[in-house]
Amino acid sequence: MNVLLVFAHPEPRSLNGALRDVAVAELKDQGHEVRISDLYAMGWKAAVDRADFPQLAPDARLNVATASGEAFKAHRLTDDVRAEQEKLLWADAVILQFPLWWFTMPAILKGWVDRVYSYGFTYGVGEHSDKRWGDRYGEGVFAGKRAMLIVSTGGWEEHYSARGINGPIEDLLFPINHGVLFYPGFDVLPAFVAHRVNRLDEAGFTVIADQLRERMRTLFTAKPIPYRRQNHGDYLIPAMQLRAELGDPDARGFALHMDDAAG
Amino acid sequence: MNVLLVFAHPEPRSLNGALRDVAVAELKDQGHEVRISDLYAMGWKAAVDRADFPQLAPDARLNVATASGEAFKAHRLTDDVRAEQEKLLWADAVILQFPLWWFTMPAILKGWVDRVYSYGFTYGVGEHSDKRWGDRYGEGVFAGKRAMLIVSTGGWEEHYSARGINGPIEDLLFPINHGVLFYPGFDVLPAFVAHRVNRLDEAGFTVIADQLRERMRTLFTAKPIPYRRQNHGDYLIPAMQLRAELGDPDARGFALHMDDAAG
Repeated sequence: MNVLLVFAHPEPRSLNGALRDVAVAELKDQGHEVRISDLYAMGWKAAVDRADFPQLAPDARLNVATASGEAFKAHRLTDDVRAEQEKLLWADAVILQFPLWWFTMPAILKGWVDRVYSYGFTYGVGEHSDKRWGDRYGEGVFAGKRAMLIVSTGGWEEHYSARGINGPIEDLLFPINHGVLFYPGFDVLPAFVAHRVNRLDEAGFTVIADQLRERMRTLFTAKPIPYRRQNHGDYLIPAMQLRAELGDPDARGFALHMDDAAG
Repeated sequence: MNVLLVFAHPEPRSLNGALRDVAVAELKDQGHEVRISDLYAMGWKAAVDRADFPQLAPDARLNVATASGEAFKAHRLTDDVRAEQEKLLWADAVILQFPLWWFTMPAILKGWVDRVYSYGFTYGVGEHSDKRWGDRYGEGVFAGKRAMLIVSTGGWEEHYSARGINGPIEDLLFPINHGVLFYPGFDVLPAFVAHRVNRLDEAGFTVIADQLRERMRTLFTAKPIPYRRQNHGDYLIPAMQLRAELGDPDARGFALHMDDAAG
């Protein structure tokens, strides 16, 4: 199978760099083909701006959704963005790897999302009616593909636990897992998270490297997070609210959008 | 009072641009002094990389926390970062204004956080013991200052409601409100959120402009979100988990970290 790993750390000799090498070696051992988008090495441009849309008239207002939709349709997106879109279409599984900075991805990776996820490609697609609300949340361009995050933190695992002060890591990652990956159709695997990476000794590294290898071996077989699909009856359309009778009565917020009885 | 508005939209003639002008005019009418960091107009560099730390030896590994801490201490941060830190210290209130892109801030604003929030300035400060765990979550460099978000979305308000498919907007913004603003000490006001901004007509704009003016008039008097302070007894140290007897029994995840009985 084909695996794209998008890597967002500025230092190849970092723990993230070492984990990336572990993941890639294991994937290749499994017979997969691997491509890497090393955003720092590529000098990836992070901010969406007018330079992304050379076809836009100099005096025209920039509306990013409109401009990216027109450029996508006319095959006029910039070469760097088109190359990433082609890699995404090539991949059977996509891994985003990054250090958690201020409780989400680094700017360079957010800029990869902002620029590569053009209108007409990952959003604004499909029928909007009283039966369906676009191809999203379980449908879309990446349907049938898998995705997962590899994340490092400097903090303690307890601080990211159910009652930890930072908030549960699953909830901190929900806007990415659900909003960036599930939205355009990926089946999303639980994130691989390595905590306290600045304090890791060799024995500690061996442990998490082994855990990561196992996750790479099960990339195409592990059970995805059971997010509810939008257009299959669980949500009112167009209010897009979960039907009153659904959801664990104890669940709140993000947790409502998982169907733990599924699968 | 002094107000810093950090603006992260690429088009001044956008709804965001219009709302910014409304906010700034009202703040000035109230007698406040206002400074604006217009990140796109400034050509703000988004990605943290080696160029941020010219003092780093060419063959040295880049650890962002270490490098930014050393540069902060030695007053060797780059001029653009130091200018933003000075503005933050000058301000009595800080507003971050941005369109919600993929459920969080645009890359250029994330890069402002990643670069301006250096080690020793907003994190890695204060005593770590069995009594305290650094100056953070309610203490820190910005203690006594206020902050709030002004956010626009293309989506419907219902889709961001308690049972909406995108997740509740308060939870989507928690990593910013709690993790970026409350962490270094700001008192955080509830976000001002304008939904469906692409469909807004003149009457609709008048309504939200009036609401925004009211928020600007109450910037220094409105009640902040009652996030629990870290070092005042609610959390076990160093596990940093909320004590078992605290928190609404129905609350989960992010909601645990608000004390609704407070204030």
